[in-house]
Amino acid sequence: MTGPGTARPGGRTARVRDAVRRATLAELAERGYAGLTVEAVAARSGVHRTTVYRRWRNADGLVADALDLAAGEPWPVPDTGTLEGDLRVIARLVLTGYADPEQGPVARAFVLAAAQSAVAARALNAFFARRHEQSAVVVERAAVRGEVPAGTDAAEVVRLAVAPLYYRLFVTGEPVDEAAADRAAGAAAAAARAGALVT
Amino acid sequence: MTGPGTARPGGRTARVRDAVRRATLAELAERGYAGLTVEAVAARSGVHRTTVYRRWRNADGLVADALDLAAGEPWPVPDTGTLEGDLRVIARLVLTGYADPEQGPVARAFVLAAAQSAVAARALNAFFARRHEQSAVVVERAAVRGEVPAGTDAAEVVRLAVAPLYYRLFVTGEPVDEAAADRAAGAAAAAARAGALVT
Repeated sequence: MTGPGTARPGGRTARVRDAVRRATLAELAERGYAGLTVEAVAARSGVHRTTVYRRWRNADGLVADALDLAAGEPWPVPDTGTLEGDLRVIARLVLTGYADPEQGPVARAFVLAAAQSAVAARALNAFFARRHEQSAVVVERAAVRGEVPAGTDAAEVVRLAVAPLYYRLFVTGEPVDEAAADRAAGAAAAAARAGALVT
Repeated sequence: MTGPGTARPGGRTARVRDAVRRATLAELAERGYAGLTVEAVAARSGVHRTTVYRRWRNADGLVADALDLAAGEPWPVPDTGTLEGDLRVIARLVLTGYADPEQGPVARAFVLAAAQSAVAARALNAFFARRHEQSAVVVERAAVRGEVPAGTDAAEVVRLAVAPLYYRLFVTGEPVDEAAADRAAGAAAAAARAGALVT
């Protein structure tokens, strides 16, 4: 027996899920979280609305599934040879993501959705947990090289390298640029080297 | 001639403005930004609705004026004798503010309002600019003591000490506690001492 969630990857279920995901992202980019509806996603994806309602239920379900798929995607972990170099690449990825005319509005919509919906908030939390896990290797390699003390909290180093950018983007509304990204990465690397982020 | 904005402090204009501000904060705490209306603020404040409409125009005007008044309020700048101690107090103020059952929902409503309204975003930006300015003295004193290099960017040190908390609160939805506040403050102080935040 093959239920909706158990079809093989690349099968009909995966194609439907991907079509709905792409429509969800396009709607979020154009209309934001406040404008996201099952009806519009169904129309845009070509998937029957009763199918979308049955499997995703509502806008929050669509947001959560899009985040779930995004969390599972491959993500380019840098390996520049130094912790600061790696953190700089990660911080600049945040910068270019939010500056991107397609990705930026979607990423902002995800954060806004999480502020208003517990379902979206759980999915966004899981998404960032995955990104922190994926990034941890840059700190582990730095520990092996002796750049930072053993026991340095990898997720905390990564948080510190990106948090000042998110603070500017989502709280203070201050501009973000490459200088801000590089400064955040440099500060996180310096704090880690000084042993301030040992668990 | 005394127009509405030029009455002496403590006069009728100031009393009306304060009543409207208090009603705005109470409404934001109870109903959030999405539920804020001029009608409800007028009813709650006892100020005539035509007056509220004329002077504040709409919900965004009420949010902006509440932020403007908040920015002008005295704010307890710590002086513990070390940069790390001072930053720890500042980070813990963020923590206790958002954990407070009255202040917390209002502060969250301000951030949510800024994400959806350019007027609110400008006011929130000005509010944080003022807080960064007020906090700068802790870094300036640290430079005089020789704790951090001359030319250390004070606002950037303060951003680094609080950004990980805002990142957890508004982006990743991760828990915040005193340990997280102290770690952020310690990391910001270490980065500043290492000279990573010199302009």
